[in-house]
Amino acid sequence: MTTRKLLLLPGDGIGPEAMGEVSKIIAILNDEAAAGFETETGLVGGAAYDAHGAAISDADMARATAADAVLFGAVGGPKWDAVPYDLRPEAGLLRLRKEMALFANLRPAICYPALAEASSLKRELVDGLDILIVRELTGGVYFGSPKEIVDLGNGQKRGVDTQVYETYEIERIARAAFEAARTRHGKVTSMEKRNVMKTGVLWNEVVSRIGRDEYPDVRLEHMLADAGGMQLVRAPKQFDVIVTDNLFGDMLSDIAAMLTGSLGMLPSASLGAVDAATGTRKALYEPVHGSAPDIAGKGIANPIAMIASFAMMLRYSFAMTREADALEAAIAGVLEAGTRTGDIMAPGCRQVGTTEMGDAVAAAL
Amino acid sequence: MTTRKLLLLPGDGIGPEAMGEVSKIIAILNDEAAAGFETETGLVGGAAYDAHGAAISDADMARATAADAVLFGAVGGPKWDAVPYDLRPEAGLLRLRKEMALFANLRPAICYPALAEASSLKRELVDGLDILIVRELTGGVYFGSPKEIVDLGNGQKRGVDTQVYETYEIERIARAAFEAARTRHGKVTSMEKRNVMKTGVLWNEVVSRIGRDEYPDVRLEHMLADAGGMQLVRAPKQFDVIVTDNLFGDMLSDIAAMLTGSLGMLPSASLGAVDAATGTRKALYEPVHGSAPDIAGKGIANPIAMIASFAMMLRYSFAMTREADALEAAIAGVLEAGTRTGDIMAPGCRQVGTTEMGDAVAAAL
Ligand SMILES: CC(C)[C@H](C(=O)O)[C@@H](O)C(=O)O
Ligand SMILES: CC(C)[C@H](C(=O)O)[C@@H](O)C(=O)O
Repeated sequence: MTTRKLLLLPGDGIGPEAMGEVSKIIAILNDEAAAGFETETGLVGGAAYDAHGAAISDADMARATAADAVLFGAVGGPKWDAVPYDLRPEAGLLRLRKEMALFANLRPAICYPALAEASSLKRELVDGLDILIVRELTGGVYFGSPKEIVDLGNGQKRGVDTQVYETYEIERIARAAFEAARTRHGKVTSMEKRNVMKTGVLWNEVVSRIGRDEYPDVRLEHMLADAGGMQLVRAPKQFDVIVTDNLFGDMLSDIAAMLTGSLGMLPSASLGAVDAATGTRKALYEPVHGSAPDIAGKGIANPIAMIASFAMMLRYSFAMTREADALEAAIAGVLEAGTRTGDIMAPGCRQVGTTEMGDAVAAAL
Repeated sequence: MTTRKLLLLPGDGIGPEAMGEVSKIIAILNDEAAAGFETETGLVGGAAYDAHGAAISDADMARATAADAVLFGAVGGPKWDAVPYDLRPEAGLLRLRKEMALFANLRPAICYPALAEASSLKRELVDGLDILIVRELTGGVYFGSPKEIVDLGNGQKRGVDTQVYETYEIERIARAAFEAARTRHGKVTSMEKRNVMKTGVLWNEVVSRIGRDEYPDVRLEHMLADAGGMQLVRAPKQFDVIVTDNLFGDMLSDIAAMLTGSLGMLPSASLGAVDAATGTRKALYEPVHGSAPDIAGKGIANPIAMIASFAMMLRYSFAMTREADALEAAIAGVLEAGTRTGDIMAPGCRQVGTTEMGDAVAAAL
């Protein structure tokens, strides 16, 4: 029998509550599909800092690298606002991304038909929306050096961050985007600020070349990132796959997620390169939403993004397409039936807590 | 009699057409209010490149610095896509900002009631919207060095951009934001990515201190820039003044502009420090929209953002409050009366071209 080793890193805030609901799904798949999932649980973020004074311990980091896939909750909260920069909760997530070399972050922005009304955009602009944002995740301003604050004396300091991209980093994320477009609607929009940034000039040049030489069947267009943000808000359905750097991807994917009205529903996958020998790749799956400390521990958080992240894992890490489809259909069915957590409550629906929502999805599955 | 020296830099695309309509307003103010405007016209962007091989000539740069205020159209277009980086149209605008030391970019995002329907957001979310984005304009990743592409051999290149902020730069833009908030609703939201960027850490620290020590009467809140982008799309009316860095400000102000549905209507002011001796400050005014090469030369561009930029000039550079109010009221009146260019056309309105729109505003004034 296959065994599939998962590391669960629930993290902070609503992370643990949401993760708890995934366990129900894992149990079902182990029982009914002999999926052979074996789970370990580790600490990350503020929880890890409280326990070992680091945003992730070396032991948990090693477990993450050894696992077949990692499921991640969320990190951060006001409790750790004064923690030194290198130990802050986010450092755990950034270390996982960097050391596991998870360069490709796939963020689907899908508008669940049952939730189109929840969007701040007019219904016709988002109904049926289905964009995939492919964000570069191990480079750019997140990791370049120098990254420092220098004391200049006289009460003056200088803060510096450095955005660096090399050709190979842009090539591989471009390929990830073009490959995804081939399984979708065959269009890639690349976004940068080549009119102000040299990394944008290089980005544009490399993406253009990869498109021309390797993916002539995929339609490629370029937009300045500021104009791209505007177009996302104006007419999001014009996009299929958007490929962009780490920082623009952070902003643009959050905005895209928000305009679907389905923020509490959206998963993401962070993928490494495929190992030529084993055919496997390192991967971490996490909801797009954050740790939401204001509602943590109240049993009201929406676990769907977390469950949908697990569905992405079934699809991308284990090629369990049938199970992934079934789980996504179960989520859509529960929403259609009018079962809602507080964040997506609507007139005529039935409001439930985190546990009941998890039970409802498990039952539908 | 006062003389007020203006440098007009129409630039590329729809810039010249839109600028032409401002001349009508200037003529009226000279005739009827003895405003004493004297105008010179210079070249910037692609137009300057075509004429002198630089995105702005030294002579025009000197004129800009000597003028009491600069009115700027727009730069760029596909014609200059292959121009070397240092000579590209945008370089003219960046040189003006840097050499005139225009560190404070004020971008009002106002939803004209007559146009609320044009927004992609639901009407109730944007109706009456009035945000002011205060964007730092002479620092950050736009100007830091190194900014370069290095050839590494083997077909590999490395692109680098550097974001730098020093304490004094953050102090002065924070003060600009707090001062503006005092004349508005007394609230400032500062946006950065302190969880990933050292410049964000410094930004947060300095803005907090200036708020605490100098503006205890103004409410200050902090948001991560990605969360801020989401909140802007979800519930824009929660904001009064937003203060942020050059790059986040570029993205966030464009998104804010787009969600008002009034992009073709929005002006901006870029201001330098007040000279203690003369009480004056260098200033450049420009529409938020770009050069729109696709509709240039057709006589259909909306000149209102350009005219509204001139109204901001009356207010900020010349303290001509009565005239600025009158001009803004004239614009609102023309819109209320149903006169519309193509970009803001709506059922039941009368569609006009650039010239007629300029005439309508002039007549209303
Ligand atoms: C938590 C934070 C470091 C992270 C990021 O900025 O990448 C988050 O916003 C995200 O988008 O995953
Ligand atoms: C034209 C370009 C250099 C400029 C910028 O990025 O600042 C523009 O987008 C703006 O917002 O004024």
